[in-house]
Amino acid sequence: LKSATEEIETLIALMARLPGLGPRSARRAVLHLIRKRSTLMDPLATLMGHVAEATRECSRCGNFATSDICDICSDPARDIGEICIVEDVADLWAMERGKAFKGRYHVLGGMLSALDAIGPEDIGIPSLLSRIVSEQVREVILALNATVEAQTTAHYIADALREANVQVTSLAQGVPIGGELDYLDDGTIQAALRARKRF
Amino acid sequence: LKSATEEIETLIALMARLPGLGPRSARRAVLHLIRKRSTLMDPLATLMGHVAEATRECSRCGNFATSDICDICSDPARDIGEICIVEDVADLWAMERGKAFKGRYHVLGGMLSALDAIGPEDIGIPSLLSRIVSEQVREVILALNATVEAQTTAHYIADALREANVQVTSLAQGVPIGGELDYLDDGTIQAALRARKRF
Repeated sequence: LKSATEEIETLIALMARLPGLGPRSARRAVLHLIRKRSTLMDPLATLMGHVAEATRECSRCGNFATSDICDICSDPARDIGEICIVEDVADLWAMERGKAFKGRYHVLGGMLSALDAIGPEDIGIPSLLSRIVSEQVREVILALNATVEAQTTAHYIADALREANVQVTSLAQGVPIGGELDYLDDGTIQAALRARKRF
Repeated sequence: LKSATEEIETLIALMARLPGLGPRSARRAVLHLIRKRSTLMDPLATLMGHVAEATRECSRCGNFATSDICDICSDPARDIGEICIVEDVADLWAMERGKAFKGRYHVLGGMLSALDAIGPEDIGIPSLLSRIVSEQVREVILALNATVEAQTTAHYIADALREANVQVTSLAQGVPIGGELDYLDDGTIQAALRARKRF
């Protein structure tokens, strides 16, 4: 039988492994949890246990799901003709928050990297390509980051689809809505100038 | 049956109620939890559920405990003759991290406040006083904050113990170890100067 102090210390150590929480803020969080143990800690534990047990990767797109196919892939209202390619589920969530994309996704889960010896098979590009052909996708939207690896991956996918009857696009680059020029990095300003539009 | 997305959104909303986590960082934390669902989320859920179910307040001092009396109150190595009075369990934990105090505690759980109509009975001062007398406490150490309410509470307790055969002390005020004068508030510098010692 562990003592209360030991259990609470273990709980603090586990909480401190979450991004954004250090040892000090994990301690404060656990204190808050114990104070609200019936209204917050107990429901949180139950839900966490359930999500941990029920969540898996969608076998089609890599999104999180509670069944073999995720909510988005199994939604008949989503356009099967458009696939948005993202690096990870965080990016998929960000796209969904934008509420502008009505197609489906493909989560790569990683980027090509010569340094880390990550090749096309490691991030499932062959199965992505066959998915695009078999589902008769009209447009592939590359929503990848600006890193060297992500851009290499984007070019690799675009090249591989050159023969297929698919339009390949990527997200526009430019000044964020409400962004102040003074706070933008040089690369963004250069990209926004290159892609300038008639007013 | 709730969808995966709904459950995950509920989980994010619960996590966002923790101090130090906003909606954005709660989202990142949940994403991390789902990625590490077997090594982190599942153990965390189990432990959280257990702590939520097992933890209560020590009937003697107010510390968190898994039985009627907490680890500190039931430790025969702790000096029963010294009681350190703190506002909440966070302060008790801070004192314990200091590893310098070998007596026992009393958690008030609040401070006297004329504004909020919190009187001595509301924060259990009568039972604290009878505890001090019945346990034949030699010294009461006031480890309370510098707020008006805390100082009012400290004076109230000291006054109430004037008749009892108990020494009442409070934590020394001064420059923190390693603290730089330049960064200290005026009140601390004034207190440190008033309490100056022969070098």
